[in-house]
Amino acid sequence: MARLITELGRLPGICEITAERLASHLLLVPRDQALGLARAIQEMREQLRRCSLCGGYAQEEPCPICRDPGRDPRRIVVVEEPRDQVALEEAGVCDGRYHVLGGRLAPLEGVESRDLTLELLARRVAALLAEGPELVELIIATNPNLEGDHTALAVATRLQGLPGHERLVMTRIATGLPSGSAIEYAHREVLVDAFRGRRPLEITSESAP
Amino acid sequence: MARLITELGRLPGICEITAERLASHLLLVPRDQALGLARAIQEMREQLRRCSLCGGYAQEEPCPICRDPGRDPRRIVVVEEPRDQVALEEAGVCDGRYHVLGGRLAPLEGVESRDLTLELLARRVAALLAEGPELVELIIATNPNLEGDHTALAVATRLQGLPGHERLVMTRIATGLPSGSAIEYAHREVLVDAFRGRRPLEITSESAP
Repeated sequence: MARLITELGRLPGICEITAERLASHLLLVPRDQALGLARAIQEMREQLRRCSLCGGYAQEEPCPICRDPGRDPRRIVVVEEPRDQVALEEAGVCDGRYHVLGGRLAPLEGVESRDLTLELLARRVAALLAEGPELVELIIATNPNLEGDHTALAVATRLQGLPGHERLVMTRIATGLPSGSAIEYAHREVLVDAFRGRRPLEITSESAP
Repeated sequence: MARLITELGRLPGICEITAERLASHLLLVPRDQALGLARAIQEMREQLRRCSLCGGYAQEEPCPICRDPGRDPRRIVVVEEPRDQVALEEAGVCDGRYHVLGGRLAPLEGVESRDLTLELLARRVAALLAEGPELVELIIATNPNLEGDHTALAVATRLQGLPGHERLVMTRIATGLPSGSAIEYAHREVLVDAFRGRRPLEITSESAP
């Protein structure tokens, strides 16, 4: 029991009192329910592995997204974590494939570029560039904060010297005012982004009022 | 007393019960305090007027921003309401001048383009274009929502046929992920904007990690 409380207490956001409460809950519920949780943890760790192509987690190798022939293999969305990939997939914003870095550069926490799958990405992009004359697009979708911006630059810096890099288009997702919001309640940084990133307005006969 | 309650009840967000409470408060406070509020309302309405150049509210004519020689007169930020101008001024994002439309197109509420200062803007831009050979930039900073986008298009459509319009650059402030936010918590519309608006990543020796 003491060992279970220690193990539960290691989970993020679980203090010792909550760990004790969870442990006594697991003692009182039907045996099957407690073992079901244990088995789910075990199976998740045994069955999910990192895809050797994109670094994402999947049961299959390569992962279903890397194998999907309906996706453009020459457009790669670079994200920090699998959860970012999940969010973008749910929004359905991109027909390309992904590359999961496995984190972001955070010098203060000791996370350096060798802790990310940056070399895997460099090999993958180099192979795509060697494959044919078409453009390769890398959409860098690390989070729009200090560490994410820093990581985006590190990715771009690592890849800019690859052979054939003149056919490599590296873009960064847009920052600005979130759609549906109001200028009067926006933070200064958001307004600065919205002004810096302003774009020519296109008037089409379809969109005109 | 009944008339005061009726008048207070016309303010936005003030129900009848609150109006009654405010009225009895104004009856019980020292006479000077009650009359101070009355005078403040009166003076505000007497002293603030719309600037004949930009449509914003100011005590002086033209308003201090329109008179400020340090601002680029050929860059105009178009906003819906004076409060948007205040937010942008506080953020200090632009060295240009403003044009206050006095609202946004809202057909369901009966707000049409003749209720906005669109013709004043058209005359102002036409005069700037006639003045000299330099470019005129119009930054359309209506709110990033359905009505604001619709209003932005109406502004652009009205101005696109002016003489010299080939020297008129009309831009829209950027939408996307708000700076400092996380992809995993963003709404679908925000992610779609962030992807559609993606921009080439610039690597400068200064910004490289």
